[in-house]
Amino acid sequence: MTNAIVENNLLRTLTRRFDRSPLQLNRQLEADAEIIRLPNGGNLAVTIDTVAEEIAAGLYDDPYLAGWMVVTASLSDLAAVGALPLGLLISEVLPEGFPPASIDRLQAGIDDACRHHRSHVLGGDTNTGGELLLTGCAIGTVEHPLSRMGCLPGEHLYTTGPLGRGNAFALARHLGWSGIFYRPTARLREGRTLVGKATACMDTSDGVLATLDQLMRLNGCGFELDEPLFLDDAARAVGERAGAPWLLLAGEHGEFELLFTLPAGRERELDGWAPVHLGRVIAEQEIRLVVGGRLVAVDTGRTRNMRSEAGGGLREYVRALFHYDEELRRVPI
Amino acid sequence: MTNAIVENNLLRTLTRRFDRSPLQLNRQLEADAEIIRLPNGGNLAVTIDTVAEEIAAGLYDDPYLAGWMVVTASLSDLAAVGALPLGLLISEVLPEGFPPASIDRLQAGIDDACRHHRSHVLGGDTNTGGELLLTGCAIGTVEHPLSRMGCLPGEHLYTTGPLGRGNAFALARHLGWSGIFYRPTARLREGRTLVGKATACMDTSDGVLATLDQLMRLNGCGFELDEPLFLDDAARAVGERAGAPWLLLAGEHGEFELLFTLPAGRERELDGWAPVHLGRVIAEQEIRLVVGGRLVAVDTGRTRNMRSEAGGGLREYVRALFHYDEELRRVPI
Repeated sequence: MTNAIVENNLLRTLTRRFDRSPLQLNRQLEADAEIIRLPNGGNLAVTIDTVAEEIAAGLYDDPYLAGWMVVTASLSDLAAVGALPLGLLISEVLPEGFPPASIDRLQAGIDDACRHHRSHVLGGDTNTGGELLLTGCAIGTVEHPLSRMGCLPGEHLYTTGPLGRGNAFALARHLGWSGIFYRPTARLREGRTLVGKATACMDTSDGVLATLDQLMRLNGCGFELDEPLFLDDAARAVGERAGAPWLLLAGEHGEFELLFTLPAGRERELDGWAPVHLGRVIAEQEIRLVVGGRLVAVDTGRTRNMRSEAGGGLREYVRALFHYDEELRRVPI
Repeated sequence: MTNAIVENNLLRTLTRRFDRSPLQLNRQLEADAEIIRLPNGGNLAVTIDTVAEEIAAGLYDDPYLAGWMVVTASLSDLAAVGALPLGLLISEVLPEGFPPASIDRLQAGIDDACRHHRSHVLGGDTNTGGELLLTGCAIGTVEHPLSRMGCLPGEHLYTTGPLGRGNAFALARHLGWSGIFYRPTARLREGRTLVGKATACMDTSDGVLATLDQLMRLNGCGFELDEPLFLDDAARAVGERAGAPWLLLAGEHGEFELLFTLPAGRERELDGWAPVHLGRVIAEQEIRLVVGGRLVAVDTGRTRNMRSEAGGGLREYVRALFHYDEELRRVPI
């Protein structure tokens, strides 16, 4: 497996000097949100997320979607630790001369996402800059937070919903295919019902394989995915047209579902909903799935690094993904 | 007085659709940080602040200063409500190919500011973008928050420290004069000692006159400043060289002191420090100070709007400030 994840290395460089707060319960990378002990009891779950690259790449050219996403991405991190949101802070960098109609669309996206998730904007900041850029900070409370740590071989892997729509949306846009509707939601209710049950949990904000890769590295185990892959209808259609459905899990534009692990039988204890079985936790540090009819170990470190190695070029990134698909199919039996 | 503040109008437009959270204790604009009731008792103070324009304008061309400022600006909002910080989240947008030495300077500035204020980075996010852009979110706890609301005519106006260094730094840079050291700190300790005593409190992140203007609009009263103005040494030198010391209070690049009001005599009750007397609260909605030897009412709404009316041009902004100084001196006696 690829040893060094570019993103994790950058994070290590950036935080090299920093001391951890004695109030912080989680270690770096080990939870989707930061968990902070409160003086009067209970814990805070906090997270910050900037939506920049998707806007700059033209993927979120509708300000409504950009607004929706800054809310959803932050709340999804709270969902993945089982927290109940207190609300959000949002900082907006608006381009000089941003039209009033665009501002209106942007704020409508933020407002609708807040209403959908029964949360509120608590405050914010605005600045003028070269391009639209949104930062969301979500704050919640949690008694017994979920973390990314703790899954064991023999346990089962589940998802809160069908996968691949984030990448289907991005790939269809990139290839000029007809539009796919993309408006993910944070799985807050599901996250809270997983507290005390899931042995590990993480959202798929960076795509399914990046999520599994991170869980693999943190827990020292691997995952084997069921066949057929649990793709959403739009993702299946795009994946089949592209000739490589599994790539809809490999791209970095996520669907914001939760991936989580449970010991056998515990999925029946979830209150009011049935998770979808996605695979099993295995002892080997590998991500195994069926590509071209054969079970293969995908080098998910390689697919995770492709974006940064493409040097910001979307075309190069997509080409690298498809090239890897061909390579996997050529592996001698 | 100028009726409409461009920045406040934008804020109203942006938040027009939003419902306030039932957990939020402060109303819009009425406190430097948002105050949220916690389920287990006590309140959270939260704030978000993006450092963008100062970096884009070249004012923070040293990444160390940019890092220092993103921490200090956020913590200063907590200081102004009397909160005790739990820590910070920081989102960094790094330009493509940002040199490792610059990253190191940036992180050193963040780290040193955290250590100075005895706080911690709890988590963050990183993205690649067109220009360096930093967003800080500070989180703290507070039992009895200070707010901007509540000062009354006859009370006294104080500051935690000498004024004008932020604008002296910016003006000297703009005019190519020799460098002025600028590294403000958040007045966290002072803010906490003001709890239960100050009738209104706000930090000078946007400069002294913008702060007084906001307090005037919120409280329906005005302020008359003592003569001579309580300028910091560097600010006095720059102000005298420029021929208009009072403009060091009018510019929008702040010094991050706290301005606060106290009923007569209560300044002796502050634990372990003596605030500096800055002036008095008056019944008229005016900001009065001495310009060119005469007490005048400065249209602080006009000076606040100059930056946005200059359309992003720093040269036009500075020219407008100096033009207004001349105009004030020409007022017939």
